[in-house]
Amino acid sequence: MRFHGFFRSGAAWRCRIAFALKGVSPEFVPVHLRRGGGEQKAPAYKALAPQGLVPALEVDGHVLTQSLAIIEWLEETIPEPALLPKDAFARAEVRAFALVISADVHPLNNLRVLNYLKDPLGHDQATVDAWYRHWCEAGLAALEVIAARAAGRGRFTFGDTPGLADVCLVPQMGAARRFGTDTRVYPRLTAIEAACDELAAFVEARPDRQPDAEA
Amino acid sequence: MRFHGFFRSGAAWRCRIAFALKGVSPEFVPVHLRRGGGEQKAPAYKALAPQGLVPALEVDGHVLTQSLAIIEWLEETIPEPALLPKDAFARAEVRAFALVISADVHPLNNLRVLNYLKDPLGHDQATVDAWYRHWCEAGLAALEVIAARAAGRGRFTFGDTPGLADVCLVPQMGAARRFGTDTRVYPRLTAIEAACDELAAFVEARPDRQPDAEA
Repeated sequence: MRFHGFFRSGAAWRCRIAFALKGVSPEFVPVHLRRGGGEQKAPAYKALAPQGLVPALEVDGHVLTQSLAIIEWLEETIPEPALLPKDAFARAEVRAFALVISADVHPLNNLRVLNYLKDPLGHDQATVDAWYRHWCEAGLAALEVIAARAAGRGRFTFGDTPGLADVCLVPQMGAARRFGTDTRVYPRLTAIEAACDELAAFVEARPDRQPDAEA
Repeated sequence: MRFHGFFRSGAAWRCRIAFALKGVSPEFVPVHLRRGGGEQKAPAYKALAPQGLVPALEVDGHVLTQSLAIIEWLEETIPEPALLPKDAFARAEVRAFALVISADVHPLNNLRVLNYLKDPLGHDQATVDAWYRHWCEAGLAALEVIAARAAGRGRFTFGDTPGLADVCLVPQMGAARRFGTDTRVYPRLTAIEAACDELAAFVEARPDRQPDAEA
């Protein structure tokens, strides 16, 4: 397995946590999102991943893209420890939580979108940062309500073992703080993040632990 | 089952196609996204769906949100006709295609985002329309490459029966044209859409066939 990612990409970070929880260690291929105008836009990378976005996972002659599709594949091929519950309603609940982050927060705050706000739209860094926080905080506020309703079920978002919801939440909380959001206003999400931070899989997956990390 | 949606919502449209393919007919509850400042923001609706977005599906005392989570639930509870293939690699490919649309195109072009571009960012309709087309066309260009590679497999995106990829593609093609994108520049996607248009499930799910449709 060869994993194409970038230390700071939230989508790659999700995959790293899932790999660690499942006990797999793909070879890492760094794709620098800023160097040379963005290595993810290079023809060789786009031949693998036509969107020109990280992450991508090469395995057995296949190229898997989109973090949630990669993690679902991992779940189907390495069922234990399970990142999704068995009950269909419970699975829908976990997937919806993951999609709030991976569909309705993260893509709005992706590097390519922030770049577009600067050029061609001409906004300054303060306006870009406010955009980032706006969508991040809208998502986290909804997730706090959802997570608080499930708080009686365990230390993690939906129970006593970490799952797909936690895999998506932790990178989003990290990204939120990087752009100036005070995540302490989401007490249940903060408690879940703290529970995750006690696990080696979550610690090892952090951006600053990656071989391509920068200050 | 009670389905909360809006005729023009692309995410609700995906669910309608999936319901029709699976042969289920939930009671429809219209949530008008513009009337009264947006009925999806009303406290009663947000109590059901804390994000304040459509769609939501009430079933057996549960409230399911996020179109892909709803469709995966439908697939798990009504397996036939299958919207996902059986092989794990093939499932990852279909899910990735669906996520290009539902994570990397649609959320950037959602009503709430277009509204933010106008207020507070102050852009005019032409700039908003250009934003819409930019992200839509970036996504469709990547999907055309992916779909063309799979063209030998059948009439639909990934074979001879319609699946999750087609369920997501058709609403995105419709939205693209509404905002002035010439979808004919994507010949494989256009051919897939034409194949879908021959099926009653896709025709019945169109926005203009819904009880809340407006001109």
